[in-house]
Amino acid sequence: MTLHKDVMLDFARGARTGLDEAVLCASKSVPHLAAILEQAQAKGRHMLLTRLLPEQLAGLSHEHRTAIDYEPLSRTGYFGGTHDLKTQTQVAVVAAGTSDVAVAREAARTLRFYGEPSVEINDVGVAGLWRLLERIEEIRGHRVVIAVAGMDAALPTVIGGLVSSMIIGVPTSVGYGVATGGETALRAMLSSCSSGLVVTNIDNGFGAACAALRVLRTQ
Amino acid sequence: MTLHKDVMLDFARGARTGLDEAVLCASKSVPHLAAILEQAQAKGRHMLLTRLLPEQLAGLSHEHRTAIDYEPLSRTGYFGGTHDLKTQTQVAVVAAGTSDVAVAREAARTLRFYGEPSVEINDVGVAGLWRLLERIEEIRGHRVVIAVAGMDAALPTVIGGLVSSMIIGVPTSVGYGVATGGETALRAMLSSCSSGLVVTNIDNGFGAACAALRVLRTQ
Amino acid sequence: MTLHKDVMLDFARGARTGLDEAVLCASKSVPHLAAILEQAQAKGRHMLLTRLLPEQLAGLSHEHRTAIDYEPLSRTGYFGGTHDLKTQTQVAVVAAGTSDVAVAREAARTLRFYGEPSVEINDVGVAGLWRLLERIEEIRGHRVVIAVAGMDAALPTVIGGLVSSMIIGVPTSVGYGVATGGETALRAMLSSCSSGLVVTNIDNGFGAACAALRVLRTQ
Amino acid sequence: MTLHKDVMLDFARGARTGLDEAVLCASKSVPHLAAILEQAQAKGRHMLLTRLLPEQLAGLSHEHRTAIDYEPLSRTGYFGGTHDLKTQTQVAVVAAGTSDVAVAREAARTLRFYGEPSVEINDVGVAGLWRLLERIEEIRGHRVVIAVAGMDAALPTVIGGLVSSMIIGVPTSVGYGVATGGETALRAMLSSCSSGLVVTNIDNGFGAACAALRVLRTQ
Amino acid sequence: MTLHKDVMLDFARGARTGLDEAVLCASKSVPHLAAILEQAQAKGRHMLLTRLLPEQLAGLSHEHRTAIDYEPLSRTGYFGGTHDLKTQTQVAVVAAGTSDVAVAREAARTLRFYGEPSVEINDVGVAGLWRLLERIEEIRGHRVVIAVAGMDAALPTVIGGLVSSMIIGVPTSVGYGVATGGETALRAMLSSCSSGLVVTNIDNGFGAACAALRVLRTQ
Amino acid sequence: MTLHKDVMLDFARGARTGLDEAVLCASKSVPHLAAILEQAQAKGRHMLLTRLLPEQLAGLSHEHRTAIDYEPLSRTGYFGGTHDLKTQTQVAVVAAGTSDVAVAREAARTLRFYGEPSVEINDVGVAGLWRLLERIEEIRGHRVVIAVAGMDAALPTVIGGLVSSMIIGVPTSVGYGVATGGETALRAMLSSCSSGLVVTNIDNGFGAACAALRVLRTQ
Amino acid sequence: MTLHKDVMLDFARGARTGLDEAVLCASKSVPHLAAILEQAQAKGRHMLLTRLLPEQLAGLSHEHRTAIDYEPLSRTGYFGGTHDLKTQTQVAVVAAGTSDVAVAREAARTLRFYGEPSVEINDVGVAGLWRLLERIEEIRGHRVVIAVAGMDAALPTVIGGLVSSMIIGVPTSVGYGVATGGETALRAMLSSCSSGLVVTNIDNGFGAACAALRVLRTQ
Amino acid sequence: MTLHKDVMLDFARGARTGLDEAVLCASKSVPHLAAILEQAQAKGRHMLLTRLLPEQLAGLSHEHRTAIDYEPLSRTGYFGGTHDLKTQTQVAVVAAGTSDVAVAREAARTLRFYGEPSVEINDVGVAGLWRLLERIEEIRGHRVVIAVAGMDAALPTVIGGLVSSMIIGVPTSVGYGVATGGETALRAMLSSCSSGLVVTNIDNGFGAACAALRVLRTQ
Repeated sequence: MTLHKDVMLDFARGARTGLDEAVLCASKSVPHLAAILEQAQAKGRHMLLTRLLPEQLAGLSHEHRTAIDYEPLSRTGYFGGTHDLKTQTQVAVVAAGTSDVAVAREAARTLRFYGEPSVEINDVGVAGLWRLLERIEEIRGHRVVIAVAGMDAALPTVIGGLVSSMIIGVPTSVGYGVATGGETALRAMLSSCSSGLVVTNIDNGFGAACAALRVLRTQ
Repeated sequence: MTLHKDVMLDFARGARTGLDEAVLCASKSVPHLAAILEQAQAKGRHMLLTRLLPEQLAGLSHEHRTAIDYEPLSRTGYFGGTHDLKTQTQVAVVAAGTSDVAVAREAARTLRFYGEPSVEINDVGVAGLWRLLERIEEIRGHRVVIAVAGMDAALPTVIGGLVSSMIIGVPTSVGYGVATGGETALRAMLSSCSSGLVVTNIDNGFGAACAALRVLRTQ
Repeated sequence: MTLHKDVMLDFARGARTGLDEAVLCASKSVPHLAAILEQAQAKGRHMLLTRLLPEQLAGLSHEHRTAIDYEPLSRTGYFGGTHDLKTQTQVAVVAAGTSDVAVAREAARTLRFYGEPSVEINDVGVAGLWRLLERIEEIRGHRVVIAVAGMDAALPTVIGGLVSSMIIGVPTSVGYGVATGGETALRAMLSSCSSGLVVTNIDNGFGAACAALRVLRTQ
Repeated sequence: MTLHKDVMLDFARGARTGLDEAVLCASKSVPHLAAILEQAQAKGRHMLLTRLLPEQLAGLSHEHRTAIDYEPLSRTGYFGGTHDLKTQTQVAVVAAGTSDVAVAREAARTLRFYGEPSVEINDVGVAGLWRLLERIEEIRGHRVVIAVAGMDAALPTVIGGLVSSMIIGVPTSVGYGVATGGETALRAMLSSCSSGLVVTNIDNGFGAACAALRVLRTQ
Repeated sequence: MTLHKDVMLDFARGARTGLDEAVLCASKSVPHLAAILEQAQAKGRHMLLTRLLPEQLAGLSHEHRTAIDYEPLSRTGYFGGTHDLKTQTQVAVVAAGTSDVAVAREAARTLRFYGEPSVEINDVGVAGLWRLLERIEEIRGHRVVIAVAGMDAALPTVIGGLVSSMIIGVPTSVGYGVATGGETALRAMLSSCSSGLVVTNIDNGFGAACAALRVLRTQ
Repeated sequence: MTLHKDVMLDFARGARTGLDEAVLCASKSVPHLAAILEQAQAKGRHMLLTRLLPEQLAGLSHEHRTAIDYEPLSRTGYFGGTHDLKTQTQVAVVAAGTSDVAVAREAARTLRFYGEPSVEINDVGVAGLWRLLERIEEIRGHRVVIAVAGMDAALPTVIGGLVSSMIIGVPTSVGYGVATGGETALRAMLSSCSSGLVVTNIDNGFGAACAALRVLRTQ
Repeated sequence: MTLHKDVMLDFARGARTGLDEAVLCASKSVPHLAAILEQAQAKGRHMLLTRLLPEQLAGLSHEHRTAIDYEPLSRTGYFGGTHDLKTQTQVAVVAAGTSDVAVAREAARTLRFYGEPSVEINDVGVAGLWRLLERIEEIRGHRVVIAVAGMDAALPTVIGGLVSSMIIGVPTSVGYGVATGGETALRAMLSSCSSGLVVTNIDNGFGAACAALRVLRTQ
Repeated sequence: MTLHKDVMLDFARGARTGLDEAVLCASKSVPHLAAILEQAQAKGRHMLLTRLLPEQLAGLSHEHRTAIDYEPLSRTGYFGGTHDLKTQTQVAVVAAGTSDVAVAREAARTLRFYGEPSVEINDVGVAGLWRLLERIEEIRGHRVVIAVAGMDAALPTVIGGLVSSMIIGVPTSVGYGVATGGETALRAMLSSCSSGLVVTNIDNGFGAACAALRVLRTQ
């Protein structure tokens, strides 16, 4: 099969969202990561590093380490800077419990890398409903709501009934017993009785941010 | 092993709650059911029939059929009357969606058989939060709340954060896809971030009512 | 708790997307459905009926039956007309195999009810990659792509790598053996190596359409 | 939405059981825990710490550490004292095997924190039935029985047939092979042929105690 | 590979227990069953038919039908008579609930076919412990105890702690919700805290009887 | 309930098999183990220690350590000697692969503790059928065969078709991918097409030995 | 993206194996099937129909029905003839039990459609090992062995240790209890301790035949 | 049973593929491995070591260690050399992502040990379809394609539609959330809509290579 050049260019257009500038670090060796950073540096490209463990970071060269803007809670790093920040905040990242904040932060950091500002609203789990209701108007003002929750994951359902924005549920692996691993949170979100919720993989704050970017960039 | 008479009496005391006057009919043949009713009649005892299918009812003799006070939604029947109704209503049976009402009704009918009045509050799923909030004061006034919900089963979590009563969650098999069969609802309830919720088997309205009876009868 | 009137109005705003005009019929009795239609008629409201089985339709009165615009493949019905059709087509509904078309059609019919035109593109499963590539430019032209697939559900992954639009994956229960019930398709979509895909419950074409409506109505 | 002050007070009443004075420590960092303790100290509040690992405790400041009444088996700590102890013992906490005692102790310690005395009865698994029967009269004298068991979790079923009190089953993750993780114990309890048992999440001694508190405080 | 005659005879000895004279009928067509019966008749052999559905029986020829000693509860049939009955009863078949009797009967009928008498003891589930204790001495007198139970399947655990005989647990598919299908009963039996229980597949009364035969025939 | 002395003695008879002289050590702390050993020593009793980890053994006092006859592969220890060895070998313990030997050894060591000699036959997995066939006559000569196998666990099925002895299958957690944890081996054994196999929990060599003891001691 | 003609031709080459001439009928409506047959007829093409239910066949027109060579056990049909039969038989299709023959026959019929002769060897399950050993030389003579088995699915493992040919395992849904649905058979095959076995989806005789065709056609 | 010598030889023929010269090291102790190497050395045999962990390697004697040609990514070692390399490359080993390369390398190294050259093609996951299409002609030129992929595992499906070679899918345990452990990848491959794919256990690169060897050696 001869693949003509224009076909290739055509395909390449699919990459223009820039979502391919991210690297999932967790399962990669330090030398492998170093090689990726070399390449990015050589091409002068930005790079978003997700699931970058502290011990991986510590293993990199001083030069690489200092070139990374690292945020430990979300375990994300920016290598070589970020995209320019837009002025309008269109995304709210909402977390049910304090243990869900790491995943929410990954979403916010991913958005920031691609230039999208977001507001983070934490600790509004529905077991303390008044906390959510105090902030529901603020949430409602955003085009996209990323709702991060573990355990029974009731948060996106309740928000989905109060807000007409796009709502992306991110189940987290927080919890013990039948909640361990996030499978219950995932299935509860998929079974939501609120119409039009969509869901990502467990702990996938990066993916939720990318979905928000798909929405915001194609109008 | 010689089991002395007093030992036996002692054991028998365990049966005094009367919870053993119920028969789960679904998997029994019509002749088998008829024989049970004969025995109850001979001993002049009340009998609560649960999961009594219409076709089972239709197969019974005219005499038996007319001696049964049947409620089709919950598929429950009272044979030979019920216990005397108490005056104080201490249980609220709350159902999230219209499809959950059959299970909620089984709970209410079981309570009524044993003489406990209850109030049924339906269609207060948390995807339409205002419906629940309009009735939360009414719910709060009861010692025991039986919260029946399928799909993502967020209802007992939200009630649990607003009400300090005993709350018994009953997951239902309502739903499709990952909600089918009630496993998701069950696990979401068990993972609830509201403290002190307890849960029964899927679709087990009868069991929730029995748990309420255990609470109300031992003060 | 005294809920003031303005609070209630505030909550009611959450319902303004109109997504609450839909009724999931499958598990409801014919009399129950008839009562819902009466109410809708009395209030002069539109109503979208999903999972309306032919035998349920046949059980309704002549008057109700003729007031329903029924589409048998998707098992959807419009009662009392639909919302006005917009002029711009912003959604592509893409189905991998012929057996996935019923779910895709449910999405398209839901969109149409709420006034959103869509284009349906069928039989583009990735086992015959050229079929998808022939139509990829057409797909790319839409703001939202609903990708419906069962079995190994590779379709949204491949589209996700070629198109920068919002992509909503809908797993279907098509298949046998380990594919039965759609769990494999669901998990494959959630595990997708394409960034920013979001997913609904199995066979939930209605939910995908509602998610698309959330995106399109909040700009 | 303007949330009036009285509405907020109203909601706050939901918190009056005091069940929100507990912190699940396991997944929190030491600095995070220290900050929580600072806040509690500043407000002069009691605090129940659950799943507090020895290494977390060791990481706290000397001042904090000495202010915590720590019990290593249950991994619970009281910070700033406990509620006043009531005089009447209304709860029996029963454990099937020696490995279940840690979870039973968590329940007893939670009850004690909130001022409820309880009696602990250990090593009465039904494989040695006579051990249970020797103590059944003692168990029967309590309004609430918390039955903690792993593996096949037959204990609450047997107690449920002998005692008319409220019975809360707590499955534990004790065991190996198909018992690993407590899923079998959980499902066996939910399937119990004793009427009116209710169940909590796996290893959730804290939750069982909270359920008992809901029962005892609302008469 | 040349398989010498003596090798074959050697292998054939493995078949001398006669356990191969049984046919599982459920998934076979009526003509297929008829052909099997023809062969057995031609060779003058006994045949045990298990899971023989009434509609399969009805479809057989008059001659075949009358040659079958059919027992409807266990759905077993004896074709061409049975083995001679031994005089000593060495097996007790114990069933927890009335719904478990069908499986227990399959075990007893299998034993009877191969000439082993057994005693059936029903309705001794541990939720009514006194029923079991009244008959425990009788159970203890047998070399092999087959304990049949569904739901939480606590029966064999309790018997295992009271009796030193060989105990074979047979989980049944009786129950609803998490008990459906017998998986919970199976896992609870395998996790039993009574030492030395062994277990068969769900609803496999035939298999338990064969295991008993293996024990009784090799002393 | 007054439990008379004779009742207690009666129950105690259930314990006469001596199977209660074993302690599962894995989840117990070293001080807890030490206390158990003290008690045993004080009463002059034998004790079988299973799943005794090397680090637990190392933590015991010199006196205790030297009083334990430890076998590292099976992680079993004899404390205070064993029961007298019988002369006739009635049990064959057969292991499919070298990784299954640890579990097989636990069975053999348990048998030895209770005075039952056994023969161990290793490395006869059916992927090398000739290895099994070379030893099948030897296996056949025993009243009880304990067949230990992981992965696809075909060994007991093949033996079951060649030998008429009692066969106890012990699935092991050996393997990776879908074999991890032994669930596949367990289910394959339960589904065996050889009649009359019985099965224990995963890795439960101790339980299989106890089942053999139940068979051998009640003739 | 402009897809040039030569690119298309190139892709089309992928279809030259002819494996796309098959239609899975089970989930299709009769009119849908009729339309497919019309198209095939119009183009003069052969068509292999799999999972064609008798009631679907009965619903077709007389003309279509008579043009189909139907085999009821495998539920396969040839429409418009088959490919020419090759002379050399290179595939053995081996079935463990009589209930597995339907799936084995689907494989054989698929091979025959594409012109590959095969030999069918049935009833050689390993619980009766001698039956397999009698035919192992015959099996060994083929380049590809398709081994069809349900329940514990030990057949391909045993064959894999005796034969060096390509072996394709096909798990079947035959069985009850933990065997139901074929999941156990599938996992046992994947865990096989014989090296180099490969596996298809449950009941997928068609897929195994296609895999054999891929092997035989590319030398 | 007397097994005659010729029978044994016959069986031994099954071993002639040499696939039994491999040892799975992961779960073996260092002394156990050393003993195996001694034996191999004594007999002058080659040995393929799979899943040989670096710490195991480090624990071996200097002599053994230097006799092993170790490749760390795949964790494979050649002891005592390899089989002679053939000249024609008939196998392509294709990996979707960089994290799948370890498993792909295990396949390639296994092939090399047995003398089969292969080409490794990495980083051609279908989320970047153009990368695969650039190399599809190269892939097509091989008789056997081993397609290694984790997560949603769409790679073999897409290749299967473009290439008529034998395709062996190897799911990997790469991924997080619902992808963890490779179960999703496995099930997606088994559900593939491309005809004639076959699959191995998760991460089983060795098994895929052995399957390829079965194909290539029996023509």
